[in-house]
Amino acid sequence: MGLVVQKYGGSSVADAEGIKRVAKRVVDAKRNGNQVVVVVSAMGDTTDELIDLAEQVSPIPAGREFDMLLTAGERISMALLAMAIKNLGHEAQSFTGSQAGVITDSVHNKARIIDVTPGRIRTSIDEGNIAIVAGFQGVSQEGKNITTLGRGGSDTTAVALAAALDAEVCEIYTDVDGVFTADPRVVKKAKKIDWISFEDMLELAASGSKVLLHRCVEYARRYNIPIHVRSSFSGLRGTWVSNEPQGDQQVEHAIISGVAHDVSEAKVTVVGVPDKPGEAAAIFRAIANAEVNIDMVVQNVSAASTGLTDISFTLPKAEGRKAIDALERAKGSIGFESLRYDDQIAKISLVGAGMKTNPGVTAGFFEALSDAGVNIELISTSEIRISVVTRADDVNEAVRAVHTAFGLDSDSDEAVVYGGTGR
Amino acid sequence: MGLVVQKYGGSSVADAEGIKRVAKRVVDAKRNGNQVVVVVSAMGDTTDELIDLAEQVSPIPAGREFDMLLTAGERISMALLAMAIKNLGHEAQSFTGSQAGVITDSVHNKARIIDVTPGRIRTSIDEGNIAIVAGFQGVSQEGKNITTLGRGGSDTTAVALAAALDAEVCEIYTDVDGVFTADPRVVKKAKKIDWISFEDMLELAASGSKVLLHRCVEYARRYNIPIHVRSSFSGLRGTWVSNEPQGDQQVEHAIISGVAHDVSEAKVTVVGVPDKPGEAAAIFRAIANAEVNIDMVVQNVSAASTGLTDISFTLPKAEGRKAIDALERAKGSIGFESLRYDDQIAKISLVGAGMKTNPGVTAGFFEALSDAGVNIELISTSEIRISVVTRADDVNEAVRAVHTAFGLDSDSDEAVVYGGTGR
Repeated sequence: MGLVVQKYGGSSVADAEGIKRVAKRVVDAKRNGNQVVVVVSAMGDTTDELIDLAEQVSPIPAGREFDMLLTAGERISMALLAMAIKNLGHEAQSFTGSQAGVITDSVHNKARIIDVTPGRIRTSIDEGNIAIVAGFQGVSQEGKNITTLGRGGSDTTAVALAAALDAEVCEIYTDVDGVFTADPRVVKKAKKIDWISFEDMLELAASGSKVLLHRCVEYARRYNIPIHVRSSFSGLRGTWVSNEPQGDQQVEHAIISGVAHDVSEAKVTVVGVPDKPGEAAAIFRAIANAEVNIDMVVQNVSAASTGLTDISFTLPKAEGRKAIDALERAKGSIGFESLRYDDQIAKISLVGAGMKTNPGVTAGFFEALSDAGVNIELISTSEIRISVVTRADDVNEAVRAVHTAFGLDSDSDEAVVYGGTGR
Repeated sequence: MGLVVQKYGGSSVADAEGIKRVAKRVVDAKRNGNQVVVVVSAMGDTTDELIDLAEQVSPIPAGREFDMLLTAGERISMALLAMAIKNLGHEAQSFTGSQAGVITDSVHNKARIIDVTPGRIRTSIDEGNIAIVAGFQGVSQEGKNITTLGRGGSDTTAVALAAALDAEVCEIYTDVDGVFTADPRVVKKAKKIDWISFEDMLELAASGSKVLLHRCVEYARRYNIPIHVRSSFSGLRGTWVSNEPQGDQQVEHAIISGVAHDVSEAKVTVVGVPDKPGEAAAIFRAIANAEVNIDMVVQNVSAASTGLTDISFTLPKAEGRKAIDALERAKGSIGFESLRYDDQIAKISLVGAGMKTNPGVTAGFFEALSDAGVNIELISTSEIRISVVTRADDVNEAVRAVHTAFGLDSDSDEAVVYGGTGR
């Protein structure tokens, strides 16, 4: 008998119908002879609504109380799911993150899991119950206060529980049929990926793919827990994410796994930086001190005539103001000419371990963009990824052109999107 | 320095504005030199929405999970209130029923408080915090499962905490200015009562007054905790409920406290019951076995010619089906002729300790109804209450007529209703 951890996102349990549909899937897994642990997010937009309420009440939500507030969402969905499962004639027990043994650090609102002690869950499933666990939440080791894990936290809860319980697989149910070669909302001919390595999945997640969050994949890789991303609506086989393909898992796209895009970033250009040692360090120290996370960094060669260079970087739009303020304050000591801020950009990335040994990939990528009339503003590469920054207006056309150029198009419009985006 | 327990119902914290208004009131009480413990209900219709969701998911909601579900509502409101108070520069900590030491029996969905061990609350307020406690919930002595107290449970939580903490007063904030001599929605000239005894308040609550629930008043009487019922909207002085009036609390209506009415009941008449010992017992045993709560019971003298009598009783409309079914099943063994069911009735009650020593009250009550053309169908009396059943259509006119006849009308239309009904 195997042990399966299933995770259902907010869009899968958005209403009573959704909860009943999920209950049937859970019971099916139990009937197939598995022990089943289910991690569930808050229903639909519940969390956003609670955050909105908190903002209306106070501009400075306190950490402890804010987490107490948010965890109410999972409390509702897990209790309803347990009821729905009982209604199908199976025994179910729901557990808060604290009851499930999800131990975190004390950083309210974005705590990190530091240990999982799933004794009550183990007892519950050994007694024949289906265990329902509230995702996204834990309890701090010090102080025993309720904490939340931040966006995507329920996926991490599921993977962490799967690791602690030595589960065979962590199934992440969502509103799409799996991981696609591109965002199916943009590319109608995007193909579902049958199997993808942890490494490629990490690069896709870092490049704007929303299906799995980086932190969750990182956790799964560290503990070698295979993830099966699939739809709670269709029930079709989805995408397996693991170290090596198993059994009948097909590896169709040996060179390229997919095309990701991201329109959530802005570009900052520091103009007229003296081209001498320590200047770049001073700029990024100022940014780091403002606690701004940056993504791509590009420096062009300096013009010999002036001895000045430009340094560009991208960062989440939400942090643009903080970064600009920090640089303006440091302008005197750093000594650059001016700042440019541009939030009408898109990042397009091509990901695939195969590009390491296929020198033509970079050229093919740029040719595809050029043929589509898309201008490239920045370029950044890693061993298994190439990213470019373009105008935001060009993003859909650029993604489609690259997708076609690398032979990723399916023969049919197979991609289906069922709902919103879960957490 | 005094200790005040304040309770705010769902209509007082229905939205962010309401929560901020409540936070100001709480902080005012703290600024006035009191230690403050606040009991809060779920926001607005949250509980009803959660119950509705549960019903959509399963027709047989399981006790433990149902309570886990419902308690999410108070978790939200208490966290938001704590945030709003912190935003006003005061320290606040929120506590679940379990954390606050509200110990109950194990009857899920309508648990009874059997002990309160408010150690954490005492520590919190002694450290200078305002303590926020989730109403309506507790934890079972056996099994340590989350329980809920049923309708009106938050009022009971507040009174029980006030008793355990030896508070000076339990303030129940609601959407009306206090207890009125009649429902102000029906009688525009209803007057706010300045002081009322526990006994009269118990009779009013039993007769359909919605401001305080019977169980809460009963608890306050047992532990002699004065209740101050007042509006969270107007901030006006409300109604004091206690053993004896204190200081400037006025006792205006020595004879009659008020007129209550109730349109939530139905009348069952068992027709043609043999007038012999044991018949009534058999009827009410059948009802009791079906776990139906009944209210008034009236038996007329039997007609000598037939040896048969009729027995009528009233009960909540929601339990009508169960009662009829139980009687139909027992018809053969009991031996009555037929059943009549009538849900178009109203109960009108006159309450006041003074009627014990004022023999004219009953006559005056019936005369007022007669003058208004209202027909009386059933009569039932206690030492300090007279109740009659009339047609539901007559209820407003009947209440107004009785209110006027006993000199309860105020000189102005002072009654104000601010919102819905809290829990």
